[in-house]
Amino acid sequence: MDEAARLLEAIREQLGAGRVERLSGLLESAHAADISSALRELPLADQVHVFRLLSADQAGAVLSELDDHILLDLVRALDEHEVSRILERMPSDHVVEVVDELPKEEADKILDLMEEEKSEEVQELLEYGENTAGRLMSRDYIAVDEGATVAQAIEHIRKSARGDGGFHLYVIDDHEHLVGIVPLHRLLAADPATPIRAIRIDDVQSVVADTDQEDVARLVQRYDLVQVPVVDAGHRLLGTISVEDVIDVIHEEATEDIQRLAGVAGDETVLDPPQAVLGKRLLWRFINLGTAVLAASVIGLFEESIRALATLAVFMPIVASMGGIGTTQTATVVVRGIAMGEMTAGVVSRVMRKELWLAVTTGAANGLVLAGIAYLWKGQWLLSLVLGVALLFTMVVAAVVGTLVPVALKTFRIDPAIASSVIITTFTDVCGFFSFLGLATLMIRFLL
Amino acid sequence: MDEAARLLEAIREQLGAGRVERLSGLLESAHAADISSALRELPLADQVHVFRLLSADQAGAVLSELDDHILLDLVRALDEHEVSRILERMPSDHVVEVVDELPKEEADKILDLMEEEKSEEVQELLEYGENTAGRLMSRDYIAVDEGATVAQAIEHIRKSARGDGGFHLYVIDDHEHLVGIVPLHRLLAADPATPIRAIRIDDVQSVVADTDQEDVARLVQRYDLVQVPVVDAGHRLLGTISVEDVIDVIHEEATEDIQRLAGVAGDETVLDPPQAVLGKRLLWRFINLGTAVLAASVIGLFEESIRALATLAVFMPIVASMGGIGTTQTATVVVRGIAMGEMTAGVVSRVMRKELWLAVTTGAANGLVLAGIAYLWKGQWLLSLVLGVALLFTMVVAAVVGTLVPVALKTFRIDPAIASSVIITTFTDVCGFFSFLGLATLMIRFLL
Repeated sequence: MDEAARLLEAIREQLGAGRVERLSGLLESAHAADISSALRELPLADQVHVFRLLSADQAGAVLSELDDHILLDLVRALDEHEVSRILERMPSDHVVEVVDELPKEEADKILDLMEEEKSEEVQELLEYGENTAGRLMSRDYIAVDEGATVAQAIEHIRKSARGDGGFHLYVIDDHEHLVGIVPLHRLLAADPATPIRAIRIDDVQSVVADTDQEDVARLVQRYDLVQVPVVDAGHRLLGTISVEDVIDVIHEEATEDIQRLAGVAGDETVLDPPQAVLGKRLLWRFINLGTAVLAASVIGLFEESIRALATLAVFMPIVASMGGIGTTQTATVVVRGIAMGEMTAGVVSRVMRKELWLAVTTGAANGLVLAGIAYLWKGQWLLSLVLGVALLFTMVVAAVVGTLVPVALKTFRIDPAIASSVIITTFTDVCGFFSFLGLATLMIRFLL
Repeated sequence: MDEAARLLEAIREQLGAGRVERLSGLLESAHAADISSALRELPLADQVHVFRLLSADQAGAVLSELDDHILLDLVRALDEHEVSRILERMPSDHVVEVVDELPKEEADKILDLMEEEKSEEVQELLEYGENTAGRLMSRDYIAVDEGATVAQAIEHIRKSARGDGGFHLYVIDDHEHLVGIVPLHRLLAADPATPIRAIRIDDVQSVVADTDQEDVARLVQRYDLVQVPVVDAGHRLLGTISVEDVIDVIHEEATEDIQRLAGVAGDETVLDPPQAVLGKRLLWRFINLGTAVLAASVIGLFEESIRALATLAVFMPIVASMGGIGTTQTATVVVRGIAMGEMTAGVVSRVMRKELWLAVTTGAANGLVLAGIAYLWKGQWLLSLVLGVALLFTMVVAAVVGTLVPVALKTFRIDPAIASSVIITTFTDVCGFFSFLGLATLMIRFLL
């Protein structure tokens, strides 16, 4: 991060002094990732000014690193011809990422202005569904026919002279079916006359183009891949996904899990304009309001008891709060386990037993301590007992709900992270209120 | 995941039928990642039985994929000589991961039984601090002297004949200082007589051995690296970190962030034995109990008002619950922003403004609706007004606390994810109780 902060400071200094040439020099030697970090902290006019000083290649690299809303503002502030010239020089999969953020009309206009070949390539990629392997793949791989020799393969690589040749040579048959890969170091170590067939790896992990990006990421992590070939339904090679793109996916998916658990849009970032995130925030706050009113209506059932014994109102939120943390702890571990592929159907009952054991042990410990505190505070042993029992009961409910709700959501193909604190915690809250106030009401004559 | 499930079923079938040879054949063609997934669902005796059927290479690969507690049980169930023979064939950085999970005494015994050279290599790696670049690095890289030609470099790669040659050739000077890298495809494309100097990339990102693994992961993501060279303080090349290891780190760190936010140990997995996680769960449940009692004591201050007007007890948890979601939403986005390096000092005030804007808009909307519901329910317009105002106020507090507490924790070098729901949510709860009950008490004579 320090590099980006230093660059930002230097850019501000040169901008302030109006030294355009020094600024250009500065940008030329900077990394695109740092430039895009610095840009997001500048006002739009300065962003445009700095951006126009970049070389076309660098401008492309910067564009594909920018946050969505900054990208959108910047592209709108630039001339369409200018944008299309930059996009032409970017790898198609990166162009797709940029174009995808623009409103349809603007995107079409810019694509029309681009070279036909590039524009068609981009449009083909855009036809794959969002968040699929097809969207992530690059077509800049190098493939040779399975009949080639090592010498022919090397000659082929030399001719294609791509800047970034990747790490594997792909081997295809006459009908472009993927039949193997050759890691480049094997190619280097082999005798030039060796047939490719003799050194290729046959057992290659590949994905079809409509595979969900999350599954691609899981495959990469599971089998330690550095590049994933993408094939069509007939196993013809279409492109490759690089590990850098997969790392971005892993980050995206982790952010999604973390934020959805909290009732926040999966793709919100700290600097998103508030208007853009208002809808999602408001939605969850209203859902929470609804569930809270529901919980309140349960309390309403016991208004008589509370009127008779106001102390109940003091202790009631403690039971609910403990139910809340119990549910949150359990659900979080389970949701993460599902995301990591560890929470398989075969282990649900083991996890349930673990959580119940934890609920009973911690519930008993917490219940005992809480009963002690309540007794010292109010001096009513029966009320303290009711409190302790209600807490233990609520923790058990929390364990069951926290384990089963995410699993059930997963079964119905709903993102289990939606099992956010909001909904299932309220459920436990209600059980907490109900058990404490219910027990207390049953025994109200002894409590007064 | 399907592959692992299929394998598990097949293993169970062959185990049940006692067909050892078929089982061996099955395991031979399976991937280590799938075998280790299947193992975790078998009882220990079966785990040992299956594990002993693996080839030494596969056994090593399986060991380095196992969850910590399963690894520990399995290693203890095996003979020490057996374990050390397997470890000898594994890359040193993977041996470190395994040995690191064992109690010191057992680890020493196993290291003593290993070949001296390997054992020393492992012990050297173990000297680097936990979660540092040094621990992650492998020494199986290939380096050539900067004076070499392409032909000499290729010859060198051929001779070293490593199974996994990596993706870059490292260029070092006479004193083993890292001076550049050559991607293998450049080596392939170059004329054999070319000096390495002419095709090497000078500007290489590297890390020193004691860099935190999280910073390594950030560097990899930021600059799209596939291998990170690790150097000592004098810039001498020590080893390289592969992107696979970095992906594991990214997953670990994301899990840590998600789980710490919920008051769960960062490394807990769904299948951990309950005894192993009890401590951490209990700690947070007791902290939560403490903060809940604190919140209850605030309610206790208003017991008189509640006795006079029990309806207050019904509505009180709604305000607290809304404060809870407000805090959770804000803190989660901020904590994630910190983890992703987006929440820099320069943007704190922008984020604060965003969150305040959201607090006021959603607070006003929610407050209005809540006031409406309360009016319809109880028919008291002043109580409804108090409720709406208290809710708005609480949302503003939630925005401030949710933004500033994680930033402050980060400043004091405490993991901001510790700013878990538990602590800061209670703070907002207290503010919610205080504002609603306080306002109501001030106006109690008009409310009765």
